[in-house]
Amino acid sequence: MLVQGKHYQTIWLNEKDSSFVSVIDQRALPHELKIIDIKSVDEAAYAIKEMVVRGAPLIGVTAAYGMYLATLEAGPDNCDSYINTAFQKLAATRPTAINLLWALNESKKVIEKTEDLENKRAAALQIANQIKADDIEMCRKIGVHGLEIIKKISGQKNGDTVNILTHCNAGWLACVDWGTATSSIYHAQKAGIKIHVWVDETRPRNQGASLTAFELGEQGINHTLISDNAGGHLMQHGKVDMVIVGSDRVTAAGDVANKIGTYLKALAAKDNNIPFYAAMPASTIDWTIKNGVKEIPIEERNQNEVKYISGKHNGEIKEVLICPENTPASNYGFDVTPSRLISGIITEKGIAEASEAGLKKLYS
Amino acid sequence: MLVQGKHYQTIWLNEKDSSFVSVIDQRALPHELKIIDIKSVDEAAYAIKEMVVRGAPLIGVTAAYGMYLATLEAGPDNCDSYINTAFQKLAATRPTAINLLWALNESKKVIEKTEDLENKRAAALQIANQIKADDIEMCRKIGVHGLEIIKKISGQKNGDTVNILTHCNAGWLACVDWGTATSSIYHAQKAGIKIHVWVDETRPRNQGASLTAFELGEQGINHTLISDNAGGHLMQHGKVDMVIVGSDRVTAAGDVANKIGTYLKALAAKDNNIPFYAAMPASTIDWTIKNGVKEIPIEERNQNEVKYISGKHNGEIKEVLICPENTPASNYGFDVTPSRLISGIITEKGIAEASEAGLKKLYS
Repeated sequence: MLVQGKHYQTIWLNEKDSSFVSVIDQRALPHELKIIDIKSVDEAAYAIKEMVVRGAPLIGVTAAYGMYLATLEAGPDNCDSYINTAFQKLAATRPTAINLLWALNESKKVIEKTEDLENKRAAALQIANQIKADDIEMCRKIGVHGLEIIKKISGQKNGDTVNILTHCNAGWLACVDWGTATSSIYHAQKAGIKIHVWVDETRPRNQGASLTAFELGEQGINHTLISDNAGGHLMQHGKVDMVIVGSDRVTAAGDVANKIGTYLKALAAKDNNIPFYAAMPASTIDWTIKNGVKEIPIEERNQNEVKYISGKHNGEIKEVLICPENTPASNYGFDVTPSRLISGIITEKGIAEASEAGLKKLYS
Repeated sequence: MLVQGKHYQTIWLNEKDSSFVSVIDQRALPHELKIIDIKSVDEAAYAIKEMVVRGAPLIGVTAAYGMYLATLEAGPDNCDSYINTAFQKLAATRPTAINLLWALNESKKVIEKTEDLENKRAAALQIANQIKADDIEMCRKIGVHGLEIIKKISGQKNGDTVNILTHCNAGWLACVDWGTATSSIYHAQKAGIKIHVWVDETRPRNQGASLTAFELGEQGINHTLISDNAGGHLMQHGKVDMVIVGSDRVTAAGDVANKIGTYLKALAAKDNNIPFYAAMPASTIDWTIKNGVKEIPIEERNQNEVKYISGKHNGEIKEVLICPENTPASNYGFDVTPSRLISGIITEKGIAEASEAGLKKLYS
């Protein structure tokens, strides 16, 4: 999608030297467009762990390129063990996202079944490129399906502006292009539908304020930033027509793990009869578990993400402390929204009811 | 309550010179204990509008002292019109809090019915002192009633820690002493009950992080700061035993206006069968309206409170921008929690069911 009027993706293989990839450093957004080169598996792990790249789909793509970089580093004698270590290293970076494990497994399978180190390298690169291309196409399809929902609401409102609330960044910056939750929004824009997006700032890391507001602005989408606390009030007053969020893991029963605070918005949507959708590639569905609240492990992150907030002051990025120095804080990264609160699950295959039956129907 | 081990109230008449009052500047907390003198009605209006003082009860007390300062400024010839102008000026500072209007009316009535300017001044001071003293006593009684709820939960848990979630600052810093929501907590501490408080940071102004965390810390109460997004997850996982919040206005039917985001926590509490209480002085009840969502005016504040966050960096208070410069933002200050989500309304009179019948029973 667009940054300063130019088309970008979040990750790309260097055009002249295929031994490394480049990514947009999402920690510098929205204040600076900074490109970082990833030249080793350790740098790939660092980029995922420190959220240089973030968003479940992009984490998966980055991990796949990380496996490719591991094959470049491995020698003919230590290849198997090196690949295993790389797998473990990359898998340990973020525990909640299932795409990460999925992409790592895809890559590992291909590397293992290929003979000869040079061929392994080519195969690892090919699968990483493929996962990336597939992600773009999946996101595009998600948007095509989600567009139908927006179109319908627009029709019900006789073409009046459709107000969409979104939480965190399930945008193209979380993927490679298009995004998951935002893909429907970008497709609605292309279709000439009048839309306006309420952007939850999404504490503690403010991905809504720093990334979603940024990408919607660059794309020319009408939007308004709000505190995470505001959505319920807006819904009570008819100012929200639908909610679309992304997801880091969906259970076989349709429970949705997503950025902390998603569950609160789903409760408010239900209480005000507002449709609540989650959009993600089908690879996000974890068929091995059903009860998301009980079974999905929730990452606990550093408490300083709650105590300190980063932003721009006099042209420089600074962190400010918002509480007493010695205040203890807790920082769960995700919560789980039970399927009973979800109107539908949008994937590249179509829109499924958020239930075991609904998901099975689409994927049988 | 305690600051650095010394007992403070939020507002006091100067001991040597009764022509002005002093307040704790709450904008400097938690990083600095700064005392500001208020010497004119304009300074009182400024202090309320700019949130040097905040919290519905403290706003009322400050407004009453503001009226007293107006009588000091008024001359014998312009007294009535001066008092009327002062009333309008103070009433216009914050539209949502009913205590403000209540205190102004109490003061105006007394001033109007008193003859002679000197006597008016004495009467205005007396009523301000009285409103202050009454507030302290009301808060104490609220805590005594709320303590019973905490005691009961502690008993049900066989003396295990009672986990209480609170939103915003309905603490002594919002009142004169004790607080409303926090009064029960401080009384539980005195009663030797094991408690732990989850403190919502409360964006956009972060009163939870900067004020509630501060006062609980100074008082030695076990507590943990969380993002506003986290409460639902904690409730789903049995980590919250009850919620107590304050209120800026309660309708005759028991709907509760409070800091934006309160409604979301009430929804989550209901969804997880967790008791949700609102605590406030009886003067907060607006008997003239029933449907809070439809009838309570909700203050819209400056969008920069959403776009910028203030905190400490290298020992200085700085504001950082968290989104692109040109991002539009919206900033509703309050929301309304419908009575159906509320387990009880705690006032100095006791605990009422959040309904017209419940409130009438307690106040008949």
